[in-house]
Amino acid sequence: MDMGIRTAVAGASGYAGGEVLRILAGHPEFEIGALTAGSNAGTALGAHQPHLRSLAGRVLEETTPGTLSGHDVVFLALPHGRSGPLAEQLGEDVLVIDCGADHRLADPGDWERFYGTPHAGTWPYGLPELPGQRDALRSTRRVAVPGCYPTAVSLAMFPALAAGLAEPDVVVVAASGTSGAGRALKPHLLGSEVMGSVSAYAAGGTHRHTPEMIQNLSAAAGERVSVSFTPTLVPMSRGILATCTAKARPGVTAASLRAAYEQAYAGEPFLGLLPEGQWPATSMTLGANTVLVQVALDEAAGRVVVVAAVDNLTKGTAGGAVQSANLALGLPEELGLTTIGVSP
Amino acid sequence: MDMGIRTAVAGASGYAGGEVLRILAGHPEFEIGALTAGSNAGTALGAHQPHLRSLAGRVLEETTPGTLSGHDVVFLALPHGRSGPLAEQLGEDVLVIDCGADHRLADPGDWERFYGTPHAGTWPYGLPELPGQRDALRSTRRVAVPGCYPTAVSLAMFPALAAGLAEPDVVVVAASGTSGAGRALKPHLLGSEVMGSVSAYAAGGTHRHTPEMIQNLSAAAGERVSVSFTPTLVPMSRGILATCTAKARPGVTAASLRAAYEQAYAGEPFLGLLPEGQWPATSMTLGANTVLVQVALDEAAGRVVVVAAVDNLTKGTAGGAVQSANLALGLPEELGLTTIGVSP
Amino acid sequence: MDMGIRTAVAGASGYAGGEVLRILAGHPEFEIGALTAGSNAGTALGAHQPHLRSLAGRVLEETTPGTLSGHDVVFLALPHGRSGPLAEQLGEDVLVIDCGADHRLADPGDWERFYGTPHAGTWPYGLPELPGQRDALRSTRRVAVPGCYPTAVSLAMFPALAAGLAEPDVVVVAASGTSGAGRALKPHLLGSEVMGSVSAYAAGGTHRHTPEMIQNLSAAAGERVSVSFTPTLVPMSRGILATCTAKARPGVTAASLRAAYEQAYAGEPFLGLLPEGQWPATSMTLGANTVLVQVALDEAAGRVVVVAAVDNLTKGTAGGAVQSANLALGLPEELGLTTIGVSP
Amino acid sequence: MDMGIRTAVAGASGYAGGEVLRILAGHPEFEIGALTAGSNAGTALGAHQPHLRSLAGRVLEETTPGTLSGHDVVFLALPHGRSGPLAEQLGEDVLVIDCGADHRLADPGDWERFYGTPHAGTWPYGLPELPGQRDALRSTRRVAVPGCYPTAVSLAMFPALAAGLAEPDVVVVAASGTSGAGRALKPHLLGSEVMGSVSAYAAGGTHRHTPEMIQNLSAAAGERVSVSFTPTLVPMSRGILATCTAKARPGVTAASLRAAYEQAYAGEPFLGLLPEGQWPATSMTLGANTVLVQVALDEAAGRVVVVAAVDNLTKGTAGGAVQSANLALGLPEELGLTTIGVSP
Repeated sequence: MDMGIRTAVAGASGYAGGEVLRILAGHPEFEIGALTAGSNAGTALGAHQPHLRSLAGRVLEETTPGTLSGHDVVFLALPHGRSGPLAEQLGEDVLVIDCGADHRLADPGDWERFYGTPHAGTWPYGLPELPGQRDALRSTRRVAVPGCYPTAVSLAMFPALAAGLAEPDVVVVAASGTSGAGRALKPHLLGSEVMGSVSAYAAGGTHRHTPEMIQNLSAAAGERVSVSFTPTLVPMSRGILATCTAKARPGVTAASLRAAYEQAYAGEPFLGLLPEGQWPATSMTLGANTVLVQVALDEAAGRVVVVAAVDNLTKGTAGGAVQSANLALGLPEELGLTTIGVSP
Repeated sequence: MDMGIRTAVAGASGYAGGEVLRILAGHPEFEIGALTAGSNAGTALGAHQPHLRSLAGRVLEETTPGTLSGHDVVFLALPHGRSGPLAEQLGEDVLVIDCGADHRLADPGDWERFYGTPHAGTWPYGLPELPGQRDALRSTRRVAVPGCYPTAVSLAMFPALAAGLAEPDVVVVAASGTSGAGRALKPHLLGSEVMGSVSAYAAGGTHRHTPEMIQNLSAAAGERVSVSFTPTLVPMSRGILATCTAKARPGVTAASLRAAYEQAYAGEPFLGLLPEGQWPATSMTLGANTVLVQVALDEAAGRVVVVAAVDNLTKGTAGGAVQSANLALGLPEELGLTTIGVSP
Repeated sequence: MDMGIRTAVAGASGYAGGEVLRILAGHPEFEIGALTAGSNAGTALGAHQPHLRSLAGRVLEETTPGTLSGHDVVFLALPHGRSGPLAEQLGEDVLVIDCGADHRLADPGDWERFYGTPHAGTWPYGLPELPGQRDALRSTRRVAVPGCYPTAVSLAMFPALAAGLAEPDVVVVAASGTSGAGRALKPHLLGSEVMGSVSAYAAGGTHRHTPEMIQNLSAAAGERVSVSFTPTLVPMSRGILATCTAKARPGVTAASLRAAYEQAYAGEPFLGLLPEGQWPATSMTLGANTVLVQVALDEAAGRVVVVAAVDNLTKGTAGGAVQSANLALGLPEELGLTTIGVSP
Repeated sequence: MDMGIRTAVAGASGYAGGEVLRILAGHPEFEIGALTAGSNAGTALGAHQPHLRSLAGRVLEETTPGTLSGHDVVFLALPHGRSGPLAEQLGEDVLVIDCGADHRLADPGDWERFYGTPHAGTWPYGLPELPGQRDALRSTRRVAVPGCYPTAVSLAMFPALAAGLAEPDVVVVAASGTSGAGRALKPHLLGSEVMGSVSAYAAGGTHRHTPEMIQNLSAAAGERVSVSFTPTLVPMSRGILATCTAKARPGVTAASLRAAYEQAYAGEPFLGLLPEGQWPATSMTLGANTVLVQVALDEAAGRVVVVAAVDNLTKGTAGGAVQSANLALGLPEELGLTTIGVSP
């Protein structure tokens, strides 16, 4: 009798939790157990996630160590600061996948500077495509799921930096759909504000995903990389398009640049370098676990230009989370994940 | 060795064809064979459907009887008028699923009045949830896939009419995303025109889906039903929300109305009556093969009010097509189809 | 020395208040005085309405009788229930324009049934295009600005009903942009929820604008009119598209119908009957004080079909408010208002 | 008797032409004469620009020297390559305002490299806010209206470069609404493609607006400036948000940076530096003739970050055109133009 891998999702009424459930619902190995929430505990999942038909009648429990116990895997989709204390009370043999920020940064100083609270610690980083990361995820029982922007930016820039083709001084401007900000009731997230408008926010180096990008790209480059990051909010629900540029190192050609990406992405099921001339659109990745990239050399400006598209909720959060869970559990890395998007 | 059911898709570069492929790519039994197109023949699928990563390198062939031969199943996603002649040249043992309009109407007069060309004939109608339709689809080798609006409206109204709870005089106002109009380059479909605006079109009884609704609802009611249909175009890519009302018959109560829907939908995997108080949104159905419905009795106005949400490309076209193909091939009706939508 | 008409706006940080200010800023006669707010009092207007550049530095005061005193005109753009008590404390010689619902309904029973509170009273109704309304607005010192949906529906249907061409049993399905719901922080108004989705709400006769439509249309028809009203929320910030149908009376022709509208709209600066074959889109009216209409006779269904587009914030609220203020003050009715929209 | 300034608009059925008309319709001095078009000649303006109610019945004439003759001012809103030959046949005393690209570039080599045709010549550049440009526009009879992206980028970056606070090596990533691409029927501009998606295009230094940015910024900096420009298409009709960064020169502080912008924008009616902490959104500028900017110093990355919002059709095209026309005609520069946007 097939029991499946018993799986709990904390934060099931939010956008990240909903996307975890959307993927788990189509995954052949996970059996969905407890669904928990904060203020929405006691209500039916269908009141918040009516698109998850087969789970709509499930009632949300409180997010506590007790409700989450008795599962093989626990996905945490909680506001930052909540995962650390909770995870300490979950068994060491339970696979805990933290979709939040708490355990991503290696440097406690970075955490404290950007979040203003004590650092909860560092867990294996769930971006297996980065050099050296995949093996660290096998058999781990703790995974820090990367942030959505760092997923796009790190996978976009690591090949150029790792191959020494770009200076370690990266400028990133990224456009994000509104689901990246979660389901919090904030005035600037109202539909009336968002539709028909693009806005910048947290510019000038203040966005909390900045140190995470620096951490990943510095590791890839083998030297300290600086990142100037400007996020913008665009009128769509899902998707990130990240434009990343850096000065080209002397002697770089369009061909050498393209070759570096082809080599770095070879064998990666979820990374795609688009054919020459085709630039990424977020619709290419909607609902898929992919990052699609195009790269060019702007010879007049002397810069490497890389554009990456990702679904912030899928590969950028929940799909990446399941990919790491697959690795940690010894399942095929691609199981239950798709490279086929939903478009138009 | 498992060869799968060899399947061709004609019109693979359009929106309906792309959605057929999206579903087939996740279906365990179909093996994707020839992909054909009109003016896009000779180009790679990825130039038109970059979201279908695993098929992006496939080259489109010309849509001819020759390129479509040698398959067990052929999905036709062509402009109206094209399916008839083509289907005549495909073998009688080939399962032909026509996503176009050519074979939906039973009355040649209706066809000629609304399309102005000779009628190609009538095929079994691919809406198994309508009374009496499911059996007609088993073992057939020809299926007429319903129109997107008629899918929503017929499934929304048949329970009330079949149970004699509503007068046979239905008023429908439906909002559709732009993909319902296909990929044709028409000025009113430009993004600049569509975004930030809702518009009516083909109002006053002129829309070609009107006789199809009348056909379905009259069959359900057992008497001639009139339909006043006003379609509107809204700023989104996918989804139909159909609001359908009719005078309540004497003695109808909210409870009797709800009971009729519960009974009519019982056991239907893809039809859902939402909990009382929750009204449909198209986002609940995006990418899913579902029709979600709410019903109310407006006592002051004396009318039954039914609202239905559907993804025009999934249950409204390609998902419905695969559902009928499953039936025709003796596969489980739900195979490869999901009730889980993509949201937000 | 030109002093202008001293004008206060209560609720200046909301959408209706902001639109009143947008229009006043381009009006040659009004001089903008106190701007007041609730919880936003003490902050700069520019934090909430950064599009109103010339007023951005103005600081919001508390909404009290004191801050509003000393003005010739006071526009109230407040949640329902607030205008009644406040207006009683403003001088009888002050022109009070209530953009809220409090004083629209003539029947206290209607008010209590739909709002659940005691009725504040009935003021002259600010829809001068309705038969007999314009004169009632001249020299009045109190104006109830119509609701946005009733503006569209009443102006769409009164000609057919007044001319006896349609049965007094109207079905309305209307699509509204999200600004119609105001700036309140409600989960279903989040951009992530709204974009890419159309949803129904307050269906089945429960929407509070229903009795207002019945009141207006019954007056026009000279008999009790029933209205079945289903509002839907669409992914745009502004605009209402209302589809209204009713059984055609015997003998009605397309020509007699069109003639009735041409006659009813003749001389009305803000009402437009579109050329035959052109159906309304809300983008035609964005930012303009217009209602644009098309009418058809669906002979097969035996129904009159009228579609109207309006900007819910302009003619549907603030523009209508200024139009009535112009009348009340003896200014030219069109002063400071435009029929030119902003598109695309 | 007031005759007004007789004004013709060529390309009246396009987006730029429509916006010129929207502004002219509210301008006290211009009298709208001939409206001309290409393939739309012979049709009513209302078929293409139904939002321009008062002009809807006007019939479009052919765009020829003859139809355009007899006017004091001619606005050309034509595809590039058309303005040069046409302008030669208009009298030297006629004020010709070219909204197209033909006469913007000073260097024929730049033109030929990016457009591949012979250069039509260089006209006074219609961006009066750039150092030294305003006087060149007074009394001229020929004006080259800047491109929409260069308007945003040049006005965003000139203060930092002119003050020597930033290195002459600028990285620009800009998001544009679809109206910037005009009304051409191209597959990627369909609503179904655009909605729910952000895409990059013409990246890697290939966009035709790049040399115009370099020209303007080099003039401001007094040295050759390089520009890496990546444009992206976002799901909205109007607006550009340009994020511009450059290495900060040694010793630059946040205060010195802000001071430079305050000084550069002082007295400019249409340029606005937002209060500290408020970042631009395109909705702040919709329909207004403004460019709104925020600037920050990212100390960790060592870069100046400037974000600018503009309505690509208003200040970015038609509003800028009228502003220059006002100057050329000796009218008040602000006449008929507004700083008040339409929002939400």
